[in-house]
Amino acid sequence: MNDDWLDQITWDRDGLVPVITQEQGSGDVLMFAWMNREALALTADKRQAVYWSRSRQRLWHKGEESGHFQQVHDIRLDCDNDVVLLSVTQLGHEPGIACHTGRHSCFFQRYQDGAWHSVEPVLQDPAAIYRK
Amino acid sequence: MNDDWLDQITWDRDGLVPVITQEQGSGDVLMFAWMNREALALTADKRQAVYWSRSRQRLWHKGEESGHFQQVHDIRLDCDNDVVLLSVTQLGHEPGIACHTGRHSCFFQRYQDGAWHSVEPVLQDPAAIYRK
Repeated sequence: MNDDWLDQITWDRDGLVPVITQEQGSGDVLMFAWMNREALALTADKRQAVYWSRSRQRLWHKGEESGHFQQVHDIRLDCDNDVVLLSVTQLGHEPGIACHTGRHSCFFQRYQDGAWHSVEPVLQDPAAIYRK
Repeated sequence: MNDDWLDQITWDRDGLVPVITQEQGSGDVLMFAWMNREALALTADKRQAVYWSRSRQRLWHKGEESGHFQQVHDIRLDCDNDVVLLSVTQLGHEPGIACHTGRHSCFFQRYQDGAWHSVEPVLQDPAAIYRK
Protein backbone atom coordinates (compact mmCIF):
# COMPACT_ATOMS: atom_id res chain seq x y z
CA MET A 1 0.00 0.00 0.00
CA ASN A 2 1.07 3.51 -0.76
CA ASP A 3 1.69 5.38 2.50
CA ASP A 4 3.07 8.59 1.03
CA TRP A 5 -0.07 10.48 2.04
CA LEU A 6 0.54 9.49 5.67
CA ASP A 7 4.22 10.42 5.44
CA GLN A 8 3.22 13.88 4.25
CA ILE A 9 1.56 14.65 7.57
CA THR A 10 3.57 16.51 10.17
CA TRP A 11 2.91 14.35 13.21
CA ASP A 12 3.47 16.05 16.57
CA ARG A 13 6.02 14.97 19.19
CA ASP A 14 3.58 12.30 20.37
CA GLY A 15 3.01 10.98 16.86
CA LEU A 16 -0.47 12.50 16.74
CA VAL A 17 -2.39 14.95 14.59
CA PRO A 18 -5.35 17.05 15.81
CA VAL A 19 -8.66 16.29 14.11
CA ILE A 20 -11.72 18.54 13.76
CA THR A 21 -14.96 16.73 13.04
CA GLN A 22 -17.69 18.64 11.26
CA GLU A 23 -21.20 17.49 10.43
CA GLN A 24 -21.98 17.39 6.73
CA GLY A 25 -25.04 19.42 5.90
CA SER A 26 -25.37 21.46 9.08
CA GLY A 27 -21.70 22.43 9.12
CA ASP A 28 -21.73 22.11 12.90
CA VAL A 29 -18.37 21.40 14.48
CA LEU A 30 -19.16 18.29 16.50
CA MET A 31 -15.93 17.45 18.28
CA PHE A 32 -12.18 17.64 18.37
CA ALA A 33 -9.91 14.64 18.87
CA TRP A 34 -6.56 13.15 17.89
CA MET A 35 -5.36 10.47 15.49
CA ASN A 36 -2.14 8.58 15.17
CA ARG A 37 -0.96 7.13 11.89
CA GLU A 38 -2.91 3.89 12.30
CA ALA A 39 -6.13 5.70 13.26
CA LEU A 40 -6.01 7.89 10.17
CA ALA A 41 -5.24 4.93 7.90
CA LEU A 42 -8.20 3.03 9.40
CA THR A 43 -10.49 6.06 9.05
CA ALA A 44 -9.65 6.37 5.36
CA ASP A 45 -10.08 2.65 4.84
CA LYS A 46 -13.32 2.10 6.80
CA ARG A 47 -14.85 5.52 6.02
CA GLN A 48 -15.72 5.62 9.71
CA ALA A 49 -13.91 7.81 12.24
CA VAL A 50 -11.24 6.05 14.28
CA TYR A 51 -9.38 8.26 16.73
CA TRP A 52 -6.53 7.81 19.19
CA SER A 53 -7.70 8.11 22.77
CA ARG A 54 -5.00 9.95 24.69
CA SER A 55 -6.63 9.15 28.05
CA ARG A 56 -6.92 5.42 27.31
CA GLN A 57 -3.82 5.24 25.08
CA ARG A 58 -5.53 3.09 22.50
CA LEU A 59 -7.39 3.24 19.20
CA TRP A 60 -10.93 4.50 19.65
CA HIS A 61 -13.44 3.54 16.99
CA LYS A 62 -15.99 6.27 17.67
CA GLY A 63 -19.33 4.60 18.40
CA GLU A 64 -17.83 1.31 19.61
CA GLU A 65 -19.61 1.73 22.98
CA SER A 66 -22.40 4.18 22.15
CA GLY A 67 -23.37 2.97 18.69
CA HIS A 68 -22.87 6.57 17.57
CA PHE A 69 -20.53 5.86 14.67
CA GLN A 70 -19.40 8.59 12.29
CA GLN A 71 -19.65 7.98 8.56
CA VAL A 72 -16.80 9.86 6.90
CA HIS A 73 -17.48 11.68 3.63
CA ASP A 74 -14.43 13.85 3.29
CA ILE A 75 -10.95 14.06 4.80
CA ARG A 76 -9.09 17.35 4.54
CA LEU A 77 -5.59 18.43 5.53
CA ASP A 78 -4.54 22.00 6.29
CA CYS A 79 -1.82 24.16 4.74
CA ASP A 80 0.80 23.12 7.29
CA ASN A 81 -0.02 19.41 6.94
CA ASP A 82 -0.59 19.15 10.66
CA VAL A 83 -4.39 19.35 11.19
CA VAL A 84 -7.10 17.07 9.76
CA LEU A 85 -10.74 18.04 9.12
CA LEU A 86 -13.39 15.34 8.74
CA SER A 87 -16.81 15.81 7.21
CA VAL A 88 -19.16 13.21 8.70
CA THR A 89 -22.68 12.00 9.23
CA GLN A 90 -23.21 11.37 12.93
CA LEU A 91 -25.04 8.03 13.12
CA GLY A 92 -27.08 6.30 15.83
CA HIS A 93 -29.48 9.05 16.89
CA GLU A 94 -31.50 11.78 15.20
CA PRO A 95 -30.32 14.50 15.58
CA GLY A 96 -26.78 13.19 15.86
CA ILE A 97 -25.08 12.95 19.24
CA ALA A 98 -21.31 13.38 19.10
CA CYS A 99 -20.67 14.39 22.71
CA HIS A 100 -20.29 11.98 25.64
CA THR A 101 -22.59 14.31 27.61
CA GLY A 102 -25.45 13.34 25.28
CA ARG A 103 -25.37 16.60 23.35
CA HIS A 104 -25.22 17.15 19.61
CA SER A 105 -21.84 18.87 19.74
CA CYS A 106 -19.06 19.01 22.31
CA PHE A 107 -18.99 22.81 21.95
CA PHE A 108 -22.01 23.58 24.09
CA GLN A 109 -20.43 26.12 26.45
CA ARG A 110 -20.72 29.70 25.26
CA TYR A 111 -18.72 32.62 26.60
CA GLN A 112 -20.76 35.57 27.76
CA ASP A 113 -20.05 38.37 30.24
CA GLY A 114 -17.01 36.71 31.75
CA ALA A 115 -18.44 33.22 32.18
CA TRP A 116 -19.15 29.99 30.29
CA HIS A 117 -22.82 29.14 29.85
CA SER A 118 -24.17 25.76 28.77
CA VAL A 119 -26.45 26.57 25.83
CA GLU A 120 -27.23 23.24 24.14
CA PRO A 121 -29.71 20.61 25.33
CA VAL A 122 -28.87 17.08 26.37
CA LEU A 123 -30.55 14.91 23.71
CA GLN A 124 -30.10 11.59 25.46
CA ASP A 125 -29.07 10.64 28.98
CA PRO A 126 -25.43 9.44 28.88
CA ALA A 127 -26.40 6.64 31.26
CA ALA A 128 -28.69 5.33 28.53
CA ILE A 129 -26.10 5.79 25.79
CA TYR A 130 -23.36 3.89 27.60
CA ARG A 131 -25.48 1.29 29.41
CA LYS A 132 -23.89 -1.58 27.51
CA MET B 1 -11.40 41.52 36.50
CA ASN B 2 -12.96 38.14 36.97
CA ASP B 3 -10.65 35.50 35.51
CA ASP B 4 -12.58 32.43 36.64
CA TRP B 5 -13.58 31.67 33.06
CA LEU B 6 -9.89 31.49 32.10
CA ASP B 7 -9.08 29.33 35.12
CA GLN B 8 -11.76 26.87 34.02
CA ILE B 9 -9.83 26.03 30.88
CA THR B 10 -7.57 23.00 30.94
CA TRP B 11 -4.41 24.48 29.43
CA ASP B 12 -1.98 21.97 27.94
CA ARG B 13 1.58 21.38 29.15
CA ASP B 14 2.70 24.41 27.12
CA GLY B 15 -0.02 26.62 28.60
CA LEU B 16 -1.98 26.58 25.34
CA VAL B 17 -5.42 25.60 24.14
CA PRO B 18 -6.25 24.53 20.56
CA VAL B 19 -8.64 26.84 18.70
CA ILE B 20 -10.91 26.03 15.75
CA THR B 21 -12.04 29.05 13.75
CA GLN B 22 -15.27 28.76 11.82
CA GLU B 23 -16.86 31.30 9.50
CA GLN B 24 -20.25 32.54 10.61
CA GLY B 25 -22.86 32.06 7.91
CA SER B 26 -21.02 29.60 5.66
CA GLY B 27 -20.00 27.36 8.55
CA ASP B 28 -16.66 26.77 6.81
CA VAL B 29 -13.82 25.79 9.10
CA LEU B 30 -11.23 28.41 8.19
CA MET B 31 -8.21 27.54 10.30
CA PHE B 32 -6.83 25.96 13.42
CA ALA B 33 -4.44 27.69 15.79
CA TRP B 34 -3.49 28.01 19.45
CA MET B 35 -4.07 30.51 22.23
CA ASN B 36 -2.45 31.09 25.56
CA ARG B 37 -4.27 32.72 28.43
CA GLU B 38 -3.43 36.26 27.34
CA ALA B 39 -4.47 35.61 23.73
CA LEU B 40 -7.88 34.31 24.77
CA ALA B 41 -8.42 37.21 27.18
CA LEU B 42 -7.53 39.69 24.39
CA THR B 43 -9.80 37.89 21.92
CA ALA B 44 -12.74 38.16 24.28
CA ASP B 45 -11.96 41.79 25.03
CA LYS B 46 -11.29 43.02 21.47
CA ARG B 47 -13.79 40.70 19.75
CA GLN B 48 -11.01 40.08 17.25
CA ALA B 49 -9.01 36.86 17.09
CA VAL B 50 -5.62 36.97 18.81
CA TYR B 51 -3.67 33.71 18.73
CA TRP B 52 -0.36 32.50 20.11
CA SER B 53 2.13 31.81 17.36
CA ARG B 54 4.08 28.71 18.33
CA SER B 55 6.64 29.26 15.55
CA ARG B 56 7.29 32.88 16.51
CA GLN B 57 6.60 32.40 20.23
CA ARG B 58 4.59 35.58 20.49
CA LEU B 59 1.03 36.89 20.42
CA TRP B 60 -0.35 37.00 16.91
CA HIS B 61 -3.20 39.41 16.24
CA LYS B 62 -4.59 37.76 13.11
CA GLY B 63 -4.56 40.33 10.31
CA GLU B 64 -1.75 42.44 11.79
CA GLU B 65 0.29 41.96 8.59
CA SER B 66 -2.35 40.98 6.03
CA GLY B 67 -5.19 43.23 7.12
CA HIS B 68 -7.31 40.07 7.25
CA PHE B 69 -8.65 40.50 10.75
CA GLN B 70 -11.28 38.19 12.23
CA GLN B 71 -14.32 39.69 13.91
CA VAL B 72 -15.38 37.33 16.68
CA HIS B 73 -19.10 36.70 17.21
CA ASP B 74 -19.08 33.69 19.45
CA ILE B 75 -16.58 31.86 21.67
CA ARG B 76 -17.34 28.28 22.61
CA LEU B 77 -15.62 25.77 24.88
CA ASP B 78 -15.90 21.99 24.59
CA CYS B 79 -17.04 19.40 27.12
CA ASP B 80 -13.50 18.76 28.39
CA ASN B 81 -12.72 22.48 28.73
CA ASP B 82 -9.68 22.06 26.53
CA VAL B 83 -10.69 23.18 23.02
CA VAL B 84 -12.06 26.56 21.90
CA LEU B 85 -14.31 27.21 18.89
CA LEU B 86 -14.60 30.72 17.44
CA SER B 87 -17.35 31.92 15.14
CA VAL B 88 -15.97 34.78 13.05
CA THR B 89 -16.37 37.05 10.07
CA GLN B 90 -13.19 36.95 8.04
CA LEU B 91 -12.46 40.59 7.14
CA GLY B 92 -10.26 42.29 4.52
CA HIS B 93 -11.26 40.46 1.35
CA GLU B 94 -14.45 39.16 -0.21
CA PRO B 95 -14.72 36.18 -0.02
CA GLY B 96 -12.69 35.97 3.18
CA ILE B 97 -9.09 34.77 3.08
CA ALA B 98 -7.99 33.02 6.24
CA CYS B 99 -5.04 31.04 4.88
CA HIS B 100 -1.53 32.39 4.36
CA THR B 101 -1.55 30.68 0.95
CA GLY B 102 -4.24 33.17 -0.16
CA ARG B 103 -7.06 30.65 0.05
CA HIS B 104 -10.39 30.98 1.83
CA SER B 105 -9.68 28.13 4.24
CA CYS B 106 -6.52 26.38 5.36
CA PHE B 107 -8.23 23.03 4.72
CA PHE B 108 -7.80 22.96 0.96
CA GLN B 109 -6.16 19.55 0.61
CA ARG B 110 -8.60 16.71 0.09
CA TYR B 111 -7.82 13.03 0.47
CA GLN B 112 -8.68 10.87 -2.50
CA ASP B 113 -7.34 7.53 -3.72
CA GLY B 114 -4.33 7.52 -1.44
CA ALA B 115 -3.18 11.10 -2.04
CA TRP B 116 -3.85 14.70 -1.00
CA HIS B 117 -5.26 16.93 -3.73
CA SER B 118 -5.42 20.73 -3.58
CA VAL B 119 -9.07 21.52 -4.34
CA GLU B 120 -9.56 25.19 -3.43
CA PRO B 121 -8.49 28.21 -5.51
CA VAL B 122 -5.97 30.83 -4.46
CA LEU B 123 -8.06 34.01 -4.14
CA GLN B 124 -5.15 36.42 -3.79
CA ASP B 125 -1.41 36.08 -4.36
CA PRO B 126 0.28 35.82 -0.94
CA ALA B 127 3.01 38.14 -2.23
CA ALA B 128 0.33 40.81 -2.61
CA ILE B 129 -1.23 40.06 0.79
CA TYR B 130 2.04 40.33 2.71
CA ARG B 131 3.76 43.04 0.68
CA LYS B 132 3.77 45.42 3.63
